[in-house]
Amino acid sequence: MNIQSVKGTRDFYPEDMARRNFIADLWKEVSIRNGFVEYDGPIFEYLAMYQQKSGDEIASQLFAFEDRGGRMLAIRPEITPTLARMVNQRINALPRPIKWFSSPRLCRAERPQKGRLREFFQWNIDIIGVEDCLADAEIIFCAADFLLAAGMTAADFVVRISSRRLIAAMLEYFGVEKEKLNAVYAVLDKKSKIPQDAFEKMLEEAIADSDKRRKILALMSVDSLDKLGGIAGADENANKAIDELKKLFGWLATMGIADLCKFDIGIVRGLAYYTGIVFEIYDKAGDMRAICGGGRYDNLLADFGGQKITATGCGMGDCVLGIILEEKGLLKNLAVANSIDYFVAFAEESLQNDALKLIAKLRRAGAKADFSYKGGALGKQMKQASAVNASKCVIIGQEYQTGQLVVKNMTDGSQQNVAEKDFFDGLRQQ
Amino acid sequence: MNIQSVKGTRDFYPEDMARRNFIADLWKEVSIRNGFVEYDGPIFEYLAMYQQKSGDEIASQLFAFEDRGGRMLAIRPEITPTLARMVNQRINALPRPIKWFSSPRLCRAERPQKGRLREFFQWNIDIIGVEDCLADAEIIFCAADFLLAAGMTAADFVVRISSRRLIAAMLEYFGVEKEKLNAVYAVLDKKSKIPQDAFEKMLEEAIADSDKRRKILALMSVDSLDKLGGIAGADENANKAIDELKKLFGWLATMGIADLCKFDIGIVRGLAYYTGIVFEIYDKAGDMRAICGGGRYDNLLADFGGQKITATGCGMGDCVLGIILEEKGLLKNLAVANSIDYFVAFAEESLQNDALKLIAKLRRAGAKADFSYKGGALGKQMKQASAVNASKCVIIGQEYQTGQLVVKNMTDGSQQNVAEKDFFDGLRQQ
Repeated sequence: MNIQSVKGTRDFYPEDMARRNFIADLWKEVSIRNGFVEYDGPIFEYLAMYQQKSGDEIASQLFAFEDRGGRMLAIRPEITPTLARMVNQRINALPRPIKWFSSPRLCRAERPQKGRLREFFQWNIDIIGVEDCLADAEIIFCAADFLLAAGMTAADFVVRISSRRLIAAMLEYFGVEKEKLNAVYAVLDKKSKIPQDAFEKMLEEAIADSDKRRKILALMSVDSLDKLGGIAGADENANKAIDELKKLFGWLATMGIADLCKFDIGIVRGLAYYTGIVFEIYDKAGDMRAICGGGRYDNLLADFGGQKITATGCGMGDCVLGIILEEKGLLKNLAVANSIDYFVAFAEESLQNDALKLIAKLRRAGAKADFSYKGGALGKQMKQASAVNASKCVIIGQEYQTGQLVVKNMTDGSQQNVAEKDFFDGLRQQ
Repeated sequence: MNIQSVKGTRDFYPEDMARRNFIADLWKEVSIRNGFVEYDGPIFEYLAMYQQKSGDEIASQLFAFEDRGGRMLAIRPEITPTLARMVNQRINALPRPIKWFSSPRLCRAERPQKGRLREFFQWNIDIIGVEDCLADAEIIFCAADFLLAAGMTAADFVVRISSRRLIAAMLEYFGVEKEKLNAVYAVLDKKSKIPQDAFEKMLEEAIADSDKRRKILALMSVDSLDKLGGIAGADENANKAIDELKKLFGWLATMGIADLCKFDIGIVRGLAYYTGIVFEIYDKAGDMRAICGGGRYDNLLADFGGQKITATGCGMGDCVLGIILEEKGLLKNLAVANSIDYFVAFAEESLQNDALKLIAKLRRAGAKADFSYKGGALGKQMKQASAVNASKCVIIGQEYQTGQLVVKNMTDGSQQNVAEKDFFDGLRQQ
């Protein structure tokens, strides 16, 4: 039997795992320092949960299966529905605001390509129960905090921000029917991703009226918040949305990240459930890939059978992110971090037992320790010590007859004899 | 829409996540200090991979599904086949011995019950390329090291050890046909798990000959390594297996864990691929639940299309383990570890902007910082600071007009005024 892995999945060999852990550990560290606490849900849920609210694209990419009781289940393609379900279940017991994060493994039946796999990890941060766009600002700050902590700068990425509320108000103001909004969002979301003529053709298929299309195209070419007022006229909803965006940019300036953020009317987001502020973070190099996306979703908890409670959040996958960090040289020398503290070498086979005793004691004391199964010449063992990046090598040789260990510093090559008791006393004090 | 979670899966609310992280973090820490490096594979693989070598029980519990290309896939019920596939793919590039660990999420379509869920996490440690049973000893040491590090003692658990090689040799010596071995293993594995008469009835169904059954029952009642010699007679394979077990117990004594280990002929293991030393770790309290199981599997890499390379390893699930650690009070006060460093309170709404600036700076500097969205009276904000277990509270009040912050120690209630610049200088020095 010679079986391969499934296309679009990844094997994480130790060096790949080191890269994955660097990203996941930093997601966690940044989440915690921003006041988020970790949660997770099951890897599979009832299929129906993803068919209604995730939007057509995700619903068409589900890995669905039937269990032996005939129930239709699916591997999670996103974690937000699970978040909504979990929060709803305990809504009265959870102190608000709820600030939760998770880094779930997700699966989508996509056609595998660079930066898009059928299985990936996605950092999610969400704030539930805060109406003020200060919460949206905090989500954006936290996502930016991660990218800066990973070594990226204002030269590397930009947060593009807009508002579903604004787009909805403007489309209604232009006379687009409410039932058509979701279909039009899906078209507008493509604007920066496809050529202008292809975009205009898609828009024509969604909106027959050329006057409405002209207005929409004019709106989509606005390049600053200040210019929006003229188009919105006296429309109350549109002006409220514009005021909210202005307030958001105020918070972002207060938090010191105004230079990373930009209003961009073309940000609409593909998912069906967004209702207010929406944003995407783009890599400035190459083809401006989206690193992260999110926004406010005020109806999702109610849609899942709960109370109507406001919420906002974002997701950042590990595929595009990993490629970008790799390109920028920010994932170098990670494997070295797995180095061990003590490599125990023994000068002859009769001393192997003593070496094993020492290793067992070292490990029980919390030190990372290893040895050579093969044994053999000391020189060979020292080479193996170098290969596993040992900080120190403890040599059990002739000196051990008088209870002395030889401790060699592998960085500078210096070595000294230490009584075994003193060696362990020193270890405990570290 | 009011959707529930699927039975047999778990929601990890923050307090559950803290428990899961305690276990997963300690698995990782103990693995690394024992010289293992982390790997992982995909959450799904080709279905065929699990149908051939995992044994009937696992093969009957697969969550299988078809992708859009008509390929039959399954969520992983164990990670060892993935390990074999990955090692085979790079066998010539990987330095040996290969010492790898992983803590994968696994799914099995079991009937949910206490300690058995349809989705769980399982720590796996494996050593590939070492023939000597020193590798088995190291696997056992590492598993025991974890349980001891988690706070358990020799009073809490025992490692029961036997040998598939021994059982195979004895069964052949008794005249049991080779083709029947796997079926008889499955029966013998049940010995300690079901009543004696039920066990004997199962054995009768597998072995018609009463003389053979009598010999097998006599073998299965042996309670020490020394008594095995008499039953094995001059059979060479059986005596080799006995010598190997004696050598293993020698290594375990050298490593200082002889008091935790016991020979037990009843340990056979359900999985089909074991070939040598096998062991299970049992909780001594209550119904002697198995916490961990493993052994040597010398044919698995070859079975998966690779070279014949010796290997040994074990798995420890989080369900039974979690219940036991909980019962012993070893998972207390974990949520507190999520406490934050600085809660920033502001005396009046006009100071909220200054509070946000401070929080952004604190977070960017790596400190865990949070604030109250609601603001309001200082006393209320201080209560919230206590609720999130803040170590310190930074108050922005009247003193801030002269650049002074009030820093309150939440443990002893003491407070002092600090100039903002000095505050951040102190932070950088920590």
